Amino acid sequence: MKNQIITLLTDFGTKDHYVPSMKGVILNINPRCTLTDITHDVRPHDIEEGAFILANAYSYFPKGTIHLAVIDPGVGGPRKPILFATGDYFFVGPDNGLFALSLRREKVKRAVAVTNRKYFLSQVSSTFHGRDLFAPVAAHLSRGVKPNAFGKEVHSWTKLAFRRPGVKEERLVGEIIHIDVFGNLISNIDEEELFNFVRGDSFMIRVGRRIIRGLRKGYWQGEENETMALVGSGGFLEISVREGHAQRMLKAEKGDQIIVQLLR
Amino acid sequence: MKNQIITLLTDFGTKDHYVPSMKGVILNINPRCTLTDITHDVRPHDIEEGAFILANAYSYFPKGTIHLAVIDPGVGGPRKPILFATGDYFFVGPDNGLFALSLRREKVKRAVAVTNRKYFLSQVSSTFHGRDLFAPVAAHLSRGVKPNAFGKEVHSWTKLAFRRPGVKEERLVGEIIHIDVFGNLISNIDEEELFNFVRGDSFMIRVGRRIIRGLRKGYWQGEENETMALVGSGGFLEISVREGHAQRMLKAEKGDQIIVQLLR
Amino acid sequence: MKNQIITLLTDFGTKDHYVPSMKGVILNINPRCTLTDITHDVRPHDIEEGAFILANAYSYFPKGTIHLAVIDPGVGGPRKPILFATGDYFFVGPDNGLFALSLRREKVKRAVAVTNRKYFLSQVSSTFHGRDLFAPVAAHLSRGVKPNAFGKEVHSWTKLAFRRPGVKEERLVGEIIHIDVFGNLISNIDEEELFNFVRGDSFMIRVGRRIIRGLRKGYWQGEENETMALVGSGGFLEISVREGHAQRMLKAEKGDQIIVQLLR
Repeated sequence: MKNQIITLLTDFGTKDHYVPSMKGVILNINPRCTLTDITHDVRPHDIEEGAFILANAYSYFPKGTIHLAVIDPGVGGPRKPILFATGDYFFVGPDNGLFALSLRREKVKRAVAVTNRKYFLSQVSSTFHGRDLFAPVAAHLSRGVKPNAFGKEVHSWTKLAFRRPGVKEERLVGEIIHIDVFGNLISNIDEEELFNFVRGDSFMIRVGRRIIRGLRKGYWQGEENETMALVGSGGFLEISVREGHAQRMLKAEKGDQIIVQLLR
Repeated sequence: MKNQIITLLTDFGTKDHYVPSMKGVILNINPRCTLTDITHDVRPHDIEEGAFILANAYSYFPKGTIHLAVIDPGVGGPRKPILFATGDYFFVGPDNGLFALSLRREKVKRAVAVTNRKYFLSQVSSTFHGRDLFAPVAAHLSRGVKPNAFGKEVHSWTKLAFRRPGVKEERLVGEIIHIDVFGNLISNIDEEELFNFVRGDSFMIRVGRRIIRGLRKGYWQGEENETMALVGSGGFLEISVREGHAQRMLKAEKGDQIIVQLLR
Repeated sequence: MKNQIITLLTDFGTKDHYVPSMKGVILNINPRCTLTDITHDVRPHDIEEGAFILANAYSYFPKGTIHLAVIDPGVGGPRKPILFATGDYFFVGPDNGLFALSLRREKVKRAVAVTNRKYFLSQVSSTFHGRDLFAPVAAHLSRGVKPNAFGKEVHSWTKLAFRRPGVKEERLVGEIIHIDVFGNLISNIDEEELFNFVRGDSFMIRVGRRIIRGLRKGYWQGEENETMALVGSGGFLEISVREGHAQRMLKAEKGDQIIVQLLR
């Protein structure tokens, strides 16, 4: 356990003292663990965005990795601190839906409501549980403390209200759930849902007034500045512009509809 | 000493080659040390902001940690490179006030004007002492070189001109010294000064034209979009808007006054 | 080899799951390697900017360091994945010129077109070779797999179309190739070219309508807000404003001419 990896995902940004304070706390408890950032640039308080990024990254880490994630607008309030042990990973953070998307693909072996103050900093502020509660819990976990030691087992937790795509009037209707650094528009329609809907038929995709026919295999296939659709590296349908910026060119926003329709 | 931690704080940003060059130099001298970023996003040349962030983060790291900080508008000029050894930590960087706020809470056991070129890169540029001087000094320190080996002891150093809050006409007058990623307005009035002033009486806080009564315990206590005052995780009085952005809503800036006044 | 360092340079930003996914893949294959970021904030698809930053940073790392760099607008297309072994370093990434500037100063001992799928992830997406191909190749390399195992040796590779400065009508004409976080304008005129051209004579430098005489030794030498020229820490002629921002004050852009002219 000594060389264990702890990843960090927050909406704290990289300018303030918040993230390094958390890292200091962890290294103070377990100087031998390896700290790796997922991201700290989630939009402040945007639990869905954090959930999406975590779900796309967590499974590439070695088994036993502890994923510490803190997007916590309700800090100090009634929301529970929680710890999940799945077959392969641990997740530590507030129980507000942040882990829900990742847990869809994991088998939760144990969920614990974290209450044992023995594993917190001696003074817990009411504004910064990332440093005072979640970081020390993750650090003690990395030293081999068993999940049960942190509190009582629970059997329910917050689900994320990620809207799922639905079929309406023979159209598969999803929405943009994330826009990446390249301006790619990533939808909530995953590969399986898409292929179950189209079943080998020809189809078109509509975003705003733009109509796109069929799928490309990769970014390099499009003409320069062509708007194209493809299944991205996270397994979701996305809209991309070759060497361009789809968000700006299509004036698209998070939440906009993406509609798949068969051609007959 | 082999597994020692070196933290880095600069105003170099994360886009250019400046920070990784420093890290390369350190790993070249001591491949076994652990490097952790405090931040590289301090406003260019803003020594006060760097001092504030460092002072809020440094004490969470394990004893023996070396804090390397380089905000250095006077690089290559007469300002001294300096090294502080306190009871628990080391601080390395330019002698320009950057460490002054941290040193208020530390007992300086030894301060050394760094002059021994044996511990610098063989060629020292006049524009980048972070890479050519401070990084190698921190790295040699992490390998167990004694502070005295780097130069002569000194007994005075630059103080930071952080204005302290003062009492005027029965008001405690402080100012905003930092605005964090959430838009929280952090003042230079610390918990002790505040409670010494109000001594259990009711009070109000004024920022611009906004008047706030009393203190909240945590961000979750406010109504949505309520402007509230609380003592933040760094121990300073701060103004916050629940799930909102106080800076934008109050149109506040660094340096604006924060006034505490008793209610009678 | 176990404790080997892998650096990462990409244009993926630090918000999305792209960079942590790459790090997870690497740590999964070699949990003991040390990961260090060069930068992830290269302008999307800007191979020249990535090449410049890498060339300024790579040589400060210990011998044996693996430099993994992915700016890859042609991902999934015909461009080759490539691996270079030089006397001191390894470079892994797309063969599109990204390493060309670094390789000018290195002796390439072996260049290999990476094709052996044994060292890729079992599923290789067509949009994210950073995670599925380059990261695992770098990780296996860090475990001691020999360069030859990854594919066939090649004897030519893509050169970068960095324009070199030239002499026209007794003027040395270069251009701005990078603007750093402080607004410093860094040209493609290196120290040697400059001194070979001026040979000890007096000279002036022109950027737009601004004329600067001679060179300063360091940023601190100028008057506040003085525009000055100096040889920066990367060895290139640069234009700087003391405690100011040269780009904004001179309204300069990447690609603008920098002209050196002798005074007679």
